[in-house]
Amino acid sequence: MNPLNGYDIEDLSVGMSAEISKTITDADIVMFSGVSTDINAVHLNEEFGKTTMFGGRIAHGMLTASLISAVVGNKLPGAGCIYVGQTLKFKAPVRPGDTVTAKATVKEVMVDKCRVILDTVCTVAGKVVIEGEATMMPSSRARREAGK
Amino acid sequence: MNPLNGYDIEDLSVGMSAEISKTITDADIVMFSGVSTDINAVHLNEEFGKTTMFGGRIAHGMLTASLISAVVGNKLPGAGCIYVGQTLKFKAPVRPGDTVTAKATVKEVMVDKCRVILDTVCTVAGKVVIEGEATMMPSSRARREAGK
Repeated sequence: MNPLNGYDIEDLSVGMSAEISKTITDADIVMFSGVSTDINAVHLNEEFGKTTMFGGRIAHGMLTASLISAVVGNKLPGAGCIYVGQTLKFKAPVRPGDTVTAKATVKEVMVDKCRVILDTVCTVAGKVVIEGEATMMPSSRARREAGK
Repeated sequence: MNPLNGYDIEDLSVGMSAEISKTITDADIVMFSGVSTDINAVHLNEEFGKTTMFGGRIAHGMLTASLISAVVGNKLPGAGCIYVGQTLKFKAPVRPGDTVTAKATVKEVMVDKCRVILDTVCTVAGKVVIEGEATMMPSSRARREAGK
């Protein structure tokens, strides 16, 4: 572990995983609309939402994806890592009141490049709503001890 | 255009583009921390931030990426489209006070699959901070007129 209690790349191995869960509420949707400026009616207008294939308002896909940022940034690898990249496939809608679990699982560790690839999946009641991969640059004990 | 004033896939052609700009403030960072639960110290603790390679606090990468959601969801293709996927490469930090421009440019239109690929780039003062691609399913005039 690094001094921030995050994982160094030397601590990581394929199959390690971590997760967080959070209920997506109307407050989240309103705040995310303000932060992002994404005010699409399908997120904010229930009467419009009812006319769509979703049958009501849905959360922004990127709002749900923000939970992936939390699990990789705060848990695995956690503090001290740098977010390099992310892929996202939006598979199903998330509705106000749904509880999302974001899980990250180490898929590949590249010590020479100081990169780790994690499978990142968001689910609601076991159903996949987002899937993709995160690329992270964790801290490195070897680099730290070498003063780099 | 569809009845929501968004683009139908039949309206889209390679090279069309749209953009939005927004200043990322401390208020955005605090609200995004709450919405995402990503409370990494590099976003919230200036004294810690000063000890990092960034020299101070930086915005969450996914917060900046949320502006891509806004430009594709509200402008191009805009209302009536469905967000299918996104790739993100985080290239440089965004600091409180930075004004981010998110630009989407149509790269490929697949009428048969009803999908459009857009290059999505976020810049600060002309410097690329995020690059990637969005995959969208726009509305379709042909499908609408066929009652599908």
